[in-house]
Parts: sequence; C-alpha cells; structure tokens
Amino acid sequence: MIKQVRPSTVARPIGSAIKSTVGAAVSGSRSLASVAETYYPEEPVAPKIVSATVPGPENAKAIEKLTKVFDTRAAYFVADYYKSLGNYIVDVDGNELLDLYAQISSIALGYNNPAVLKAATSPEMAISLANRPALGNFPSSDYAEILADGILAAAPPGLDKVWTDLSGSGANETAFKAAFMYKRAQERGFDADFSSEELESCMVNSKPGCPDLSILSFETAFHGRLFGSLSTTRSKPIHKLDIPSFNWPKAPFPVLKYPLDKYAEENRAEEDRCLAEVERLIKTWPNPVAAVIIEPIQSEGGDNHTSPYFGQGLRDLTKKLNVLFIVDEVQTGVGATGKFWAHEYWNLTDAPDIVTFSKKFQAAGYYFSEPKIVPNLPYRQFNTWCGDPSKAIIARAIYKEIVANDLVARTAQVGEYLIGKLEALSTKFPTKIQNLRGKGTFIAWDMESPEVRDSFLKALRTNGVNCGGCGPKSVRLRPALVFEEKHADIFVDVVEKVFQL
Amino acid sequence: MIKQVRPSTVARPIGSAIKSTVGAAVSGSRSLASVAETYYPEEPVAPKIVSATVPGPENAKAIEKLTKVFDTRAAYFVADYYKSLGNYIVDVDGNELLDLYAQISSIALGYNNPAVLKAATSPEMAISLANRPALGNFPSSDYAEILADGILAAAPPGLDKVWTDLSGSGANETAFKAAFMYKRAQERGFDADFSSEELESCMVNSKPGCPDLSILSFETAFHGRLFGSLSTTRSKPIHKLDIPSFNWPKAPFPVLKYPLDKYAEENRAEEDRCLAEVERLIKTWPNPVAAVIIEPIQSEGGDNHTSPYFGQGLRDLTKKLNVLFIVDEVQTGVGATGKFWAHEYWNLTDAPDIVTFSKKFQAAGYYFSEPKIVPNLPYRQFNTWCGDPSKAIIARAIYKEIVANDLVARTAQVGEYLIGKLEALSTKFPTKIQNLRGKGTFIAWDMESPEVRDSFLKALRTNGVNCGGCGPKSVRLRPALVFEEKHADIFVDVVEKVFQL
Repeated sequence: MIKQVRPSTVARPIGSAIKSTVGAAVSGSRSLASVAETYYPEEPVAPKIVSATVPGPENAKAIEKLTKVFDTRAAYFVADYYKSLGNYIVDVDGNELLDLYAQISSIALGYNNPAVLKAATSPEMAISLANRPALGNFPSSDYAEILADGILAAAPPGLDKVWTDLSGSGANETAFKAAFMYKRAQERGFDADFSSEELESCMVNSKPGCPDLSILSFETAFHGRLFGSLSTTRSKPIHKLDIPSFNWPKAPFPVLKYPLDKYAEENRAEEDRCLAEVERLIKTWPNPVAAVIIEPIQSEGGDNHTSPYFGQGLRDLTKKLNVLFIVDEVQTGVGATGKFWAHEYWNLTDAPDIVTFSKKFQAAGYYFSEPKIVPNLPYRQFNTWCGDPSKAIIARAIYKEIVANDLVARTAQVGEYLIGKLEALSTKFPTKIQNLRGKGTFIAWDMESPEVRDSFLKALRTNGVNCGGCGPKSVRLRPALVFEEKHADIFVDVVEKVFQL
Repeated sequence: MIKQVRPSTVARPIGSAIKSTVGAAVSGSRSLASVAETYYPEEPVAPKIVSATVPGPENAKAIEKLTKVFDTRAAYFVADYYKSLGNYIVDVDGNELLDLYAQISSIALGYNNPAVLKAATSPEMAISLANRPALGNFPSSDYAEILADGILAAAPPGLDKVWTDLSGSGANETAFKAAFMYKRAQERGFDADFSSEELESCMVNSKPGCPDLSILSFETAFHGRLFGSLSTTRSKPIHKLDIPSFNWPKAPFPVLKYPLDKYAEENRAEEDRCLAEVERLIKTWPNPVAAVIIEPIQSEGGDNHTSPYFGQGLRDLTKKLNVLFIVDEVQTGVGATGKFWAHEYWNLTDAPDIVTFSKKFQAAGYYFSEPKIVPNLPYRQFNTWCGDPSKAIIARAIYKEIVANDLVARTAQVGEYLIGKLEALSTKFPTKIQNLRGKGTFIAWDMESPEVRDSFLKALRTNGVNCGGCGPKSVRLRPALVFEEKHADIFVDVVEKVFQL
C-alpha cells in the first residue's frame, strides 16, 4: 500500500490549525452546527487589520514585483494562501479578512481545507500531475472511479453522463458544440453521412458544413469570455468591446421585484412576457437556435433570480420548439444556494438537457443524459486533454466532504440566518440595502449607485471583510460552504459599522 | 521551514525506480549522454508485451467500465500511470510500450519524472491546489516568482511578458482577443474612450462594438477547437463539421518538397507564392485582418515545415501591413525540435508579436513584449482564474530540468541520430518511408495511404511501440526530451520488423 503523504506537513496556516485537525476533518460526519469549528478550531475569531491602510505597504511591494510579470490592475490585494484559513483570507501585510467572495465564488470549503489538502497531497494527485493524460486517447486506469465517486455522484437529478473540460467558458463552449452537432444530426439523420458539400464548405468556414446556427441567451447573462461563450454573455460592455461576435439572439430576462412572494403576480406577468419573447425569437431568428442557455440566478449580471414558474416555462418551451435547454451552473452550482444545483429549486418535470459546471468544483464540464448528445463519431468532441484528472480528484474530495457534513443543508440554514439579519438591517438602512435577495448564502442587495457600492466594498475591506460586487450596483455575497452563523454575525456587524461611517 | 514531502512515498512505477533516483535527479547537471539513465535506471530495457492481443483483456474490462462514464471511442488503451516510467507507458494489461507519442506531445520529461514529482508533491503545489486563486483579483504571494523562474525564464528571444490561460485553445483565443483589442485601439487611439455607439452595439453582438475583424490562418493549420480557435483550424473536417464559424481568411501553406535543402529553389518559389497570397488576402479580405497565426511546423495537419525564409517573410509582411504576427508553439514549443522554441530556427530579425504555448509546459498562455498589447483597461483580458499556479509550478520544474540537463541540445543530438537511422531505413523501404522530415526528435514521414499508416500504427503497438499519426497519412514521432539513442535503436528495430511483417 502506498503511504499517504500527511497533509499536516504541508501548510502553515494561521496558528498551524491544520496540523491539529486533519484527523477529525476527514473522519466522517459531524453535527450541522460544528462543522467550521471542527475544521478550523484555530480560525481567527474576528477579522484583524494590522496595516495602517488596506491594502498596506507589503501589498504595494508585492504588487510592484508582480506587475513586472503579470497584469495586476484588477488586483484587490496580494494574498498569502499559506496563512489563509477557513473563512479568512490573509494578505501579505498580515491582515486577516473574513472572506465572503471566495475567489469569485470558487472556493467551496474554505482556505486550506484539510480534506482538500489531503486530496492535494495524495499519491493519485502526484501521479495525475506528473503524468497528465490525454484522456481521450490514453485514459488513466483510475479515471472511471474518480468520475463515478465524485463529479458523477454529484450529477443533477435526471442526468448521468459528463464531458469534462477545464473552465466555465470551456464547459459552456463544448456544450454549445454538442448542441450544434445534435441539431444538425436531427436534421440530417443521426446515422447519415456528411455530404461532400458539407465536408468541403466547413474547411472554408462556410455553410452548410459550418452552419449559421445560434445559441439564445438572456439580457445581462454571463457565460464566459471566449468567442462562443462571449457571444452569449450580455452583462457588461467591458467584456465584449472590440471582440468579433456571432449574430446570436438575446431574450429579455425577467426583471423581478423583491421580495419575490410579495410581488408574485407582477413577476408572473413579467415572466410570461419574457417567455413569449423567447418563443418569438426562436421561431424568427435568422440563424436557427440550437439551444437556450440560462443561469438559474444571473450572477455577474447582478444576482437576478428566476422562479420555478419561469424555469419550468423554459423547459416546456424548449421541448416544444425542439431546442436544447442548457443550464449554466458555473457560479450557482455546488451548494451555495442551499441546493447542490440551483436549478433544483425549479422542480422541473424533466431535467435540463445539459448542465454546465466549474468554479467551486475546480473541475469543469457538462452533464447530460440523452445518449445522442454524444456526437456520432469520435474526435468530434475532443481536444488534447479532455479534462484534467487532478481537478476531478479535488472535485471528488469536495463532493465527499459536502455529503459527509451535510453542508448544503447547513448552508441553507446559515443563509436563512444571514438574510434574516440583513432584512433587519435593511429596515434600519433602507437606502443602503435595497432589493435584498438570496438563496442559501448566495445573497445580494442593491445600493444607491455604482459609486456608493464601490466605496462600500472598499470600506468593508478596510474593516476586515472581503466581498464582491455584481451588476451595476449590487453587493454579492459568495462565502464558502463552511460559513456559519458566527461569521454572519461578524459580517453584519461590520456592514452596520461601515453604513454608519 | 516547511518539511518537504518526499516524492519517493508517492509513486510505485516499474521496479520502484523513482525511490532510488530522486536524490540524483534533482541535484543539478549531468553529462548529456546519461540523462535518462540517471533519471530512470529502472526503466525497461525493451518493450514488453504480455497480453495475447494489444490492447488485451484487462483493457477491455477497463474500457467497459470507463465507457459507462466517459466517451472512450478515441481511446488507444487505458494506461496505468502508476507503473509508467520514463519513455515507457504501461497499460492495464501490464504491457510496457516505448512511447513516442507522449500524450499527444504533452509529456516533456517522461513518465513519473522525479523532478516533476517533486514539484507535484511540494508544499506550494498543495497550497496552490487547495486555494486556487482568482489570479486577476487575488494573486498569490508567490506567483511573481513562479512565473519569473519558470514560464518567463523560458520566454522566446525578444519577448518578456506573459498572459496565462489553461489550454492551447484558450492561449490562442486570448491571444486573438489581445490582437483584436490592439487593432481597434490603433484605429481609435490608445487612450480614446469608447463611443456610445460601440458601448451599445457590442451588447447586441454588432458593429462597431463587436467589429468584423478576422485572424488569418493557413491551409491544414490546427490552432484549437473552441469557436475562435476552431475558426482558424483547417486541418480536418471532423474538427469543424456542424460548428458555426467566423468568416476568416485561409492562406495557402507552402507545400514543400523534402529534403528541404535538395529542393531549395522550388521551395522558395512555392513560399513566395504563399507570401504573395497572404499579402493579397490581408489587403482584400472583407473582414480586416488583425493578426496572422502560424505553427512553425504544422503538427496535426501533417508535420508541414516552414523555412527561415518563409518565417522572416511573414514577419516582414505582417510588419509592413500592420497586423500582429502570432506564432503558435503549443505543440512545437519546449524543446522537442532541438530549439526551445521552434521559431528560433527562423532567426527572425524581430521577434513575433505573440507566441502561444501549452502542452509540454502543462501551463498555457501567450508571450509578448509590446506593452500596448495589454488592453488599456483592466477586466478586458480577464476571467475567473487567469491561469493556474499549479500548472505554472509544473512548468517551472520542467524548465529547470531542461536547463540543468541541457535537454534541448541533447534532443537535437538524439534527433540527428534517429533521423539518420530512419534515412538509412528509407532507402531499404522507400515506399514505406516517404518525405522523411524533422527537427530534433520532432520527426515525421509519409506512408502510402491513410489505411497503410493506420495499420502500421496498430502493428507498432502490438510490437511494443506507441506512436501517433498526423495529416492524412503521416507517422508522427513526439517522444519526450529524455528519449535517447538507445530508445531510437529500439524504435527503428521495431519499425523495420513491422515493415517486414
């Protein structure tokens, strides 16, 4: 038997917390209330700001050094991941910030999570990194198990197959490719040969070999930044300016009033309007629509929610019009909404055709179930790596921890607690917390203007809390699944303090 | 000081070779001749076939299991990377194959290389995997050093900046985005604001915000399989069928006669013809060309070489016509051609504007030098991860090993030896080895037909050698940089044996 590498030899986070908790952290289920304490008994009890300014002088030095080799203009601060722990990110000045942004919603279980570190230092991780396979041609002997026990065990209801890729953009783009091939196969016949005209025209990027098909996306959507995914992204001009794009249709996204239950009737009318427009666009767009893609909650675009009625409406409509229904769970997936997949809130009668994932799972790809979504020939959906076992190993560790500790239910609980406290705060500061909305800890609210929001986020950091924005003027909370009531208390206290500045 | 995790506890490759060699392998430079022996003293001395058929019965079982969760139709065989070592890949039946394909040209230093395993089991690897940063927003304190000592230390002559991504397709697509933004900035003025018309039109994927610019690529080129990169890929219909594509121009690639020096004059005329056509296309294509992209040796398309004359001609032409010159070194880069970057053979008077990389470096991205190739605002070239430190750590280990052991010069030597032996063999089998060509160990030849080539590759595997194809009927050799004369001898013997079957 291969000797396990001990994670405790690897990291030196705040107070060497990992060293003392590895045993506990990987030994199965705990009560819902004590997860973070079991993981992170040495996690800071509160944010700590040690530099006179945030970011501080060491950060300035680090940025200067990094700027010589990398674009740092978007950097909030330079982080010390050796010292970060649990819900706290530590910067190079030694400031310890409570992190409700978690690498743009990409850290599932907190910093230096013992179970993830254990996977990261496992023999199979070393083997997968040192011998990265071209999975399509030379799959590894353990990939079936890695997928079955991890990514596939986590598959959304009704879906049982996966294609793995490397990023959210890549996941969506390979899903689009699958949708286009499926659409043309329906037209041509699934077993029909390509015509010589198709074979020739595709080599000069022309019809019929490269058909003028399209993907329908929604106003203020974000699906990635490569050429296909960017053609479906509609959140901000900065993403799209100067980049050639496909002539693909954009439907209106329901502009709902919050709280949703209070405005149920008005919201229903708005959703009907949008569904009708989706139908009209699919029926009339000059480039036939192969698929509709939607986020269950638009994230980058401003935390815009959808209702079960709208989700089911889209499912029905896409079935009726024979286009695929792609749900982009790159940001919403893996538990933060209080369901493992946010579209589970829709209670669909039929599963989506394709669900894409990345971010918190580290691994990326798309789920599906219809066998014919696999193209009729090998090498049609293909690339050198076809995924990355090292990320699939991390995804498996994350999935197992989430299940063992019931972290999705826990996040639903904590989210309810947090939004309750924010609701109370909003009655005190009604202009500063508008349109409060959320599921689980996947929470946002609007402020008065982009400027007010941006200053607020800066002031939060100065007061020990790292948080992000989305849309024009929203505050976006994206803590890890180990965020607890005690962290919520600290967060709300800091928010109130900053509001009073 | 953090205790180093010992790589020797991790793997159990053939004969536990790693255990005994870690010390030697990481302790600096050795003589050119003994590299593989120092690394891999327990590497097999010859291929070993133990199953009655190749692939064998265990492979059939593994494929059956994997097929339940992954598309295996392109699988050559299921590999056991725990047992693979150096130049030998081991399958699940225990067959030990000499590997001249190396995961589609993506394994730089052989299987279970001790230096790469050491990096894979280092504390910084564990930290980078367990706390994967959103590098644009929260860069890690060690990323500057990881880049400076690794990816950037390896930069091609004249280039000193890098943007990191995740795959070859992603590297090329982000390079295209940089080229488009640069082109429009030249037209608009680098400090000019976007017009309101641009800001509005880009949100509906239209001009002028999303301009109809293009990238010029070459006949039989391969640059990736996402929507932008696929629009420049022109090697095989199977890559492109049914996928919408941009209306971008394709120039003829010089069809050279081999050996190149024998046909210098005819080849020069062919290259002039192609250069003239590139110029004509750039001047007349309806969608203005922002950049030309080319592989120094077209790989997937059939190992089609270019001469220094042609490379310099393109450099001159792109400068004259004010379009960027992108050299795609995804497959040719990192030493296998006998230069670290294959375009070094061109001896350019001015460096290319952009050079892309991936595969053997595991990390991916693009090099450049012109500061204005960085867009004028943050968040224009951006995504969640902006690269992956775990891959950059592997790239650094690979680069340092290559330098410490002079593996590029060594590969040039071995390549000369190998091509000499293949030349001799071609005089004996002139129909079976046609158009033999190569630089370093980056070698190919043509066979009589696709069918003959495909049968030959299968027969090679049955006889203990794993090798790939490219183009319609070429055999493609892509061994790691630890491939030596003794491996060349074995390979040529097996080839001759198969020819005689």
